[in-house]
Amino acid sequence: MERREISQAVIMRLPRYYRYLGELLGEGVERISSGELSRRMKVTASQIRQDLNNFGGFGQQGYGYNVQYLYDEIGRILGVDRRHNMIIVGSGNLGRAIANYANFERRGFIVSGMFDIDPEMIGRSVRGIRIRAMEELEDFIRNNDVQIAAITMPKTHAPEVADRLVKAGIKGIWNFAHTDLVVPEGVVVENVHLSESLMRLSYRVCSMEDDGNGSFSE
Amino acid sequence: MERREISQAVIMRLPRYYRYLGELLGEGVERISSGELSRRMKVTASQIRQDLNNFGGFGQQGYGYNVQYLYDEIGRILGVDRRHNMIIVGSGNLGRAIANYANFERRGFIVSGMFDIDPEMIGRSVRGIRIRAMEELEDFIRNNDVQIAAITMPKTHAPEVADRLVKAGIKGIWNFAHTDLVVPEGVVVENVHLSESLMRLSYRVCSMEDDGNGSFSE
Repeated sequence: MERREISQAVIMRLPRYYRYLGELLGEGVERISSGELSRRMKVTASQIRQDLNNFGGFGQQGYGYNVQYLYDEIGRILGVDRRHNMIIVGSGNLGRAIANYANFERRGFIVSGMFDIDPEMIGRSVRGIRIRAMEELEDFIRNNDVQIAAITMPKTHAPEVADRLVKAGIKGIWNFAHTDLVVPEGVVVENVHLSESLMRLSYRVCSMEDDGNGSFSE
Repeated sequence: MERREISQAVIMRLPRYYRYLGELLGEGVERISSGELSRRMKVTASQIRQDLNNFGGFGQQGYGYNVQYLYDEIGRILGVDRRHNMIIVGSGNLGRAIANYANFERRGFIVSGMFDIDPEMIGRSVRGIRIRAMEELEDFIRNNDVQIAAITMPKTHAPEVADRLVKAGIKGIWNFAHTDLVVPEGVVVENVHLSESLMRLSYRVCSMEDDGNGSFSE
């Protein structure tokens, strides 16, 4: 299997497969048919077969998928079998919410440091993770082999912080600031724009009110 | 213009247009060509023309788009010109982050109440918004004409809370719990699954490391 053969649409869906397979494992389910997975995930069985065939086809006719194998394989593809050192820049509520989310650690994302410009916050800890001054940012990244940084600060400072992160060697930015960051090739940005998500919800609620039908044309 | 003619793909992009147009207004820009908007948004000019033609074509050859008109029109389509009463169920860091984000109010999303099961939290306030006991949930929704609820509590309780919200009349659920909610027709769910977002980032960072190229095949 060549990683580059997988389409972005499939990649977007992989984390959801990973979640469902993890839940099945938790229930002690060893094998599952595409039909049963389809009922659980509310995706057509043909979509599931098509998606999972991208990985060489783990399924066998009339036998179903091996849940543990598929879970491990998708985890490997997503890179959650590796350790990723991560920092959080911005120790407000959003930064603390992420620092407190211990589940990320089970996926290999280890938050090793937090940073803030607010002197009130510097020196405090969140779940044992120390909040440091922005002056320490570059040294910390280099000394601790940090690859991923979450930006959870207001958008005015985000572009400048992103530049510093990239220069210090960060490879992936998880951007919660409500602005689009410009990064050089070789660095990836994953945006979580909460306002935009809320506006999409608002659109769908209003569509419902206007015509009693929230469905979309395609 | 018929709302139902707009494709989901365009709707997904509208909030981003809305953000850029708002920034242009803030800079005092009155008119903009699709070419200039294309450079700013890093989207092709033809994509922009195609998207904005969905709304009857506000642009005029050689003249550009009227920024204020387009901003207002898209705002109207997204429903951010109306008031939406909203509650937040779960007053942890994530719930507080949302409650503290005053920008949502400028878009018409008024957080009127927060709810929690933790007796330690009940009675406290976040930015003047009182945290209430879960027993008050249904009455509060009915008495305050609440249409939207954010679920920012752990996934174990989320399905049960979603059922209560729907029965009390909630039309839109902004779901941060890491599970898929089942709701009846007429109710919409917008998911923000942070773990899945982080896994997508991880995949792209790993792809980069493996082949020096984070791009996707399509």
